Amino acid sequence: MALLSVLTPVLALVLCMVAGFLFLKSRAPETSPGVAGQTKGPTKKEFRPWADQDLQDDTEITRGDDDEWVENNEEEDLAHVPYSPQRYPEETMLQRAKDFYSLMSQRRSVRFISPEPVPREVIDKVILTAGTAPSGAHTEPWTFVVVSDLDTKHKIRLIVEEEEEVNYRQRMGDKWVHDLARLRTNWIKEYLDVAPYLILIFKQTYGILPNGKKKTHYYNEISVSISCGILLASLQNVGLVTVTSTPLNCGPQLRLLLKRPANEKLLMLLPVGYPAADATVPDLKRKNLEEIMVAI
Amino acid sequence: MALLSVLTPVLALVLCMVAGFLFLKSRAPETSPGVAGQTKGPTKKEFRPWADQDLQDDTEITRGDDDEWVENNEEEDLAHVPYSPQRYPEETMLQRAKDFYSLMSQRRSVRFISPEPVPREVIDKVILTAGTAPSGAHTEPWTFVVVSDLDTKHKIRLIVEEEEEVNYRQRMGDKWVHDLARLRTNWIKEYLDVAPYLILIFKQTYGILPNGKKKTHYYNEISVSISCGILLASLQNVGLVTVTSTPLNCGPQLRLLLKRPANEKLLMLLPVGYPAADATVPDLKRKNLEEIMVAI
Repeated sequence: MALLSVLTPVLALVLCMVAGFLFLKSRAPETSPGVAGQTKGPTKKEFRPWADQDLQDDTEITRGDDDEWVENNEEEDLAHVPYSPQRYPEETMLQRAKDFYSLMSQRRSVRFISPEPVPREVIDKVILTAGTAPSGAHTEPWTFVVVSDLDTKHKIRLIVEEEEEVNYRQRMGDKWVHDLARLRTNWIKEYLDVAPYLILIFKQTYGILPNGKKKTHYYNEISVSISCGILLASLQNVGLVTVTSTPLNCGPQLRLLLKRPANEKLLMLLPVGYPAADATVPDLKRKNLEEIMVAI
Repeated sequence: MALLSVLTPVLALVLCMVAGFLFLKSRAPETSPGVAGQTKGPTKKEFRPWADQDLQDDTEITRGDDDEWVENNEEEDLAHVPYSPQRYPEETMLQRAKDFYSLMSQRRSVRFISPEPVPREVIDKVILTAGTAPSGAHTEPWTFVVVSDLDTKHKIRLIVEEEEEVNYRQRMGDKWVHDLARLRTNWIKEYLDVAPYLILIFKQTYGILPNGKKKTHYYNEISVSISCGILLASLQNVGLVTVTSTPLNCGPQLRLLLKRPANEKLLMLLPVGYPAADATVPDLKRKNLEEIMVAI
């Protein structure tokens, strides 16, 4: 009994440590095999309120251990050059603003895409246009994978549909399914076979310098999303349609299928083509100016 | 001594609990008064690899406790309407693609903005155009605050400069400062006083239904960034310039200054105007098509 009394605090301590360890373990990320090596565990990160709360980009600004900074002197002293872009008279500006609004306001997300071929040169120019977007510290952290190969398109469809069905059924919760129900979408994505092009947009979470070292890409997700906005404008400008999709949980599989490197993560998948002759869209309205703008 | 032996395990347990509590507390977010009520602590969230690893949006797809789902029947059975947008002959498509690329490729981030007035009607149309962007489940989760009032612009400048200086000096690490050094920027933001308009773009992390209940805004950050891409295209189209900025850590202060509700978080700040007569830009090059596109 006396021995037990002496040992009890030790036992209690050991129990506490085991419980604490198990608790911590339960909070660690469940890294599935498919994404292993691609993500850093949250436990490695320090808390950065300015990045975590405000920007929610996954490119946290941190003195990372594994992103070695490399001097890049040739870019250090960039010359500054005069910049005097086209300037329009006020009436012309207003007319151009109205015309562009008119063009963009006719854009809709279209799930019914025609199989008719689209000139590849047009797609090339659209991608080049997307590449004019600004990016954090001019890192240009985007890769546009343009798929027209029938077999690859079908493999993409199988991956997306399998994951989407799981997402819908198990992961997303009633609310999200309910929200999408009114848009009459589901996990059958025929357009992935039918559309002449699938554009898969990858964000480069870091870059690789010529010497193989890593270079952080600040704000890569925001930058690539901005680029996607310019891409959508460019598609609308040439009379092509798409539907903006962010396939949940398919990134790792699609990255492997398309042989993209580990620093790239899928952000969006856009099927692109002419609208089908019988294409329909839900009769949605957009908010008016007063609902989206506040003037001070 | 016998009493002590009996009490020791109790003491050890209490000590463990206190230590555990302190440990957990240290992991909880440091919610500053300015952001109180605006952020959910990470401890409330469950781990969702599909959202956390792939999308990194802060709108996790979750069966949230505090986002009560509300039936919204009037939107449930939206009619589908035929959609047949403008279709161009192939030569016209290609010419339009080239012209739009030519226009967009001349866009640059400009930090030297002229104080000359810009017609407000043009700005209105540009904002309307940005509002044509797609958004997750058509939530349109954006608020564009357009500031032309001199006093408010100056207050914004003071907030941004104060935070930027702290960011540069203390938080960002040598690497980020080094990256930006070559763009010759620093924490003096004269353009915030000078530009005729400051457009502050807020993402709505959730919406408020007419009955006061919350409605989750899926992918709000990606959606608002896409909208920003269309806004940049629209500004370029009318001959106005801006510089895309994401002021770190200023969100809460600017939100309070501009009296935005708690569901809105600052994503971007764009000073807008004509370029100054002596505006210069760094002599940056953009990647070519082969560097950003992969065709399969």
